[in-house]
Amino acid sequence: MAALDLTGKRVLLTQASDFMGPVLTEVFTELGAEVIGDDGPLDDPGRPAQLVAASGTVDILLAHLGVPAARSAAIDASDDEWAHAFAHMVDPLPRLVRAVLPQMVARGAGKVLLIGSASALRGMKRASTYSAARGAQLAYIQAVGVELAASKVQVNAIAQNFVENPTYFPPEVQANPAFQERLAREVPLGRLVGAREDAMFAAYLCSTHADCFVGQVFPVCGGWVPR
Amino acid sequence: MAALDLTGKRVLLTQASDFMGPVLTEVFTELGAEVIGDDGPLDDPGRPAQLVAASGTVDILLAHLGVPAARSAAIDASDDEWAHAFAHMVDPLPRLVRAVLPQMVARGAGKVLLIGSASALRGMKRASTYSAARGAQLAYIQAVGVELAASKVQVNAIAQNFVENPTYFPPEVQANPAFQERLAREVPLGRLVGAREDAMFAAYLCSTHADCFVGQVFPVCGGWVPR
Amino acid sequence: MAALDLTGKRVLLTQASDFMGPVLTEVFTELGAEVIGDDGPLDDPGRPAQLVAASGTVDILLAHLGVPAARSAAIDASDDEWAHAFAHMVDPLPRLVRAVLPQMVARGAGKVLLIGSASALRGMKRASTYSAARGAQLAYIQAVGVELAASKVQVNAIAQNFVENPTYFPPEVQANPAFQERLAREVPLGRLVGAREDAMFAAYLCSTHADCFVGQVFPVCGGWVPR
Amino acid sequence: MAALDLTGKRVLLTQASDFMGPVLTEVFTELGAEVIGDDGPLDDPGRPAQLVAASGTVDILLAHLGVPAARSAAIDASDDEWAHAFAHMVDPLPRLVRAVLPQMVARGAGKVLLIGSASALRGMKRASTYSAARGAQLAYIQAVGVELAASKVQVNAIAQNFVENPTYFPPEVQANPAFQERLAREVPLGRLVGAREDAMFAAYLCSTHADCFVGQVFPVCGGWVPR
Repeated sequence: MAALDLTGKRVLLTQASDFMGPVLTEVFTELGAEVIGDDGPLDDPGRPAQLVAASGTVDILLAHLGVPAARSAAIDASDDEWAHAFAHMVDPLPRLVRAVLPQMVARGAGKVLLIGSASALRGMKRASTYSAARGAQLAYIQAVGVELAASKVQVNAIAQNFVENPTYFPPEVQANPAFQERLAREVPLGRLVGAREDAMFAAYLCSTHADCFVGQVFPVCGGWVPR
Repeated sequence: MAALDLTGKRVLLTQASDFMGPVLTEVFTELGAEVIGDDGPLDDPGRPAQLVAASGTVDILLAHLGVPAARSAAIDASDDEWAHAFAHMVDPLPRLVRAVLPQMVARGAGKVLLIGSASALRGMKRASTYSAARGAQLAYIQAVGVELAASKVQVNAIAQNFVENPTYFPPEVQANPAFQERLAREVPLGRLVGAREDAMFAAYLCSTHADCFVGQVFPVCGGWVPR
Repeated sequence: MAALDLTGKRVLLTQASDFMGPVLTEVFTELGAEVIGDDGPLDDPGRPAQLVAASGTVDILLAHLGVPAARSAAIDASDDEWAHAFAHMVDPLPRLVRAVLPQMVARGAGKVLLIGSASALRGMKRASTYSAARGAQLAYIQAVGVELAASKVQVNAIAQNFVENPTYFPPEVQANPAFQERLAREVPLGRLVGAREDAMFAAYLCSTHADCFVGQVFPVCGGWVPR
Repeated sequence: MAALDLTGKRVLLTQASDFMGPVLTEVFTELGAEVIGDDGPLDDPGRPAQLVAASGTVDILLAHLGVPAARSAAIDASDDEWAHAFAHMVDPLPRLVRAVLPQMVARGAGKVLLIGSASALRGMKRASTYSAARGAQLAYIQAVGVELAASKVQVNAIAQNFVENPTYFPPEVQANPAFQERLAREVPLGRLVGAREDAMFAAYLCSTHADCFVGQVFPVCGGWVPR
């Protein structure tokens, strides 16, 4: 038997075509999981529950909720920017979690993994709205993780930054010498974290080997934050 | 001259009658500040800007935004609970900050101090909504603090827990032996942090001595989190 | 090919018969690694270099250096207790790392994983000496990890606590109702982390999937610290 | 009465002529304290106890133990470099603390403040020995702080970096454009923390206002770490 095996696991993945969605699908599928990828709008309050209901058994919820960071100066960030970020990244999270918990608690088994952001762990300029939304996500996961531990449901988060993905780091950005210089200067790893490295770590955290982690936030950001 | 002196400083304090409001008013006033205490509703999108406009010069903004924690299990937390927490604790924060920044940036001086919560730093059971809202606050402050440093405006946060206040810890709670036992067990300090200890630290962080702190989160929770 | 495979990797493990040594040997061997387990004294200044020299190629160094915590009150901790802890847990670490780095840097590949302790991340009573030694280890790893990243050598640490092992938690301790109550109260997970869970995570961090982590500290302590 | 007043407090300060020693003496004296500055060698095992015995009543111990960082690459750091750093920065700390605790515990009052380093909180290149020693200090303080809280003795630490001092940042370094560029790039504050800002914060943490902090580490590093 392979040491890292998700055979038979049913995985619900939101925003399956965006950001880390494709690589998460690829890696989890390779490891034997059945990935139910969704691309529908999650800012509709009723949709998360419908989505979970339509998905049948969900062993693993990959809460993958992201919108591109606005890059406004704090002084210019608009109410609309804020509302958009929270409607897509924050409000759907408890709706998804609440919808999926009853079946997980009933089985005494299940995992929720948030694909979150390290921007909530260390301040970045021109990222106030985005960081705030990401901070809500991480603090929510820490609290729910501690609470659900006794039900044998493990709720954790990855806090990523500087991870290869087509939205933030398309080939032309990566080829830019100024970008490469910034990486060398700011990211101890000296390169972007590979998309598959990130997805494989997510898979590990969703495997039974990781039943010991609860309410924990794992930075995946090339050493940009040390823990 | 006293070492800790806020003479002549104009301080805008929100929710002035709630939570830490009264003790913040008392301590800042003793130290010479002029406290403009507000008690109006901040969930109205337009009000933060009106409030700031009506306050004239604001040297210090005490972003004091709290509602009692709901104590629901994560599985039971409602959309209404979430919306209420975010409408009062989260959404007003960038509105207040955006409204107050232009005058501070123009003067090349000013402080924003969030009276936040350590519940965003360490998971607690039955506090998922509250922790999420508090996490949004802290991550926002970290980002804005880093961004505004160059403008000589210092934006920081206190992350408190187990601080004496009439809302969370009324005399009858404090007298309860079960509560005292919990304090002894969970809080290294072995007692609640005094309300004046918390307010005095806030005053320190708003003094010119603290011009060196930017985007930083200071736990005030009797050692419940070590940093 | 299995997703988590250490076939052909040569692993140097210190204190191979103590603490996590046996389970690390078992799990790494299952995954295909060749484990060179050492049980010799490491407080002899010259021995780490000899050990590395005698080990030939070392792809992975498991820096596993622990002595039982003394449990003295801070006021009673003796110079001997301190010297013993540092001689066994701290001083050998840079000697091992310096000895193993040249071959790793020359190959442009290699991993050092410290099996460290979360006692350095959160204060515990009657553990001052032990925590100090563990703090030296973690800070060393963070610094070396950042420095060696450019050489494609990954240096990281696990910071564990409440992990099943025969030294700290023999069967009679685990069966003690007072201990079970303490676990329920202090450790969100509600149980000890399994020895194999810990070792498997160590294996993951030593696999090529984890080439993206540098200078990072990973708590493995059942949620006792959130990150 | 001034809000920040140390009148009548007897303060024992080690390495009084080095690093932060002169400014700590200046600021604490201005605030009314009687500073007993010592410059003797602390690597002699018996000296810390003698020093404390000769100092009479010590209300506040400023554990100020530093030697210039060696700046060696990890691969080149020698045993001598390590031994020197630990003999001066680490080993004297528990000896000082053990010597001063009995009188503080007997009075049910007292403060120990370590002037530590943020290099233990975030990895830096060419600082492995120094960071390790600083990590031992901080973890020791966290543990002792939690343990001594019940005795009404408060033990805490500042973790500083990028603080103005003649040893690390003499005028010629500060005037160097490359250094100024590095500050702008790496330190959110955009300048060195002033020596008096650091010393004043230390004074605050040693005042009775700060009786609520135990086992806590306070970064003072211009936002280089966010908490």
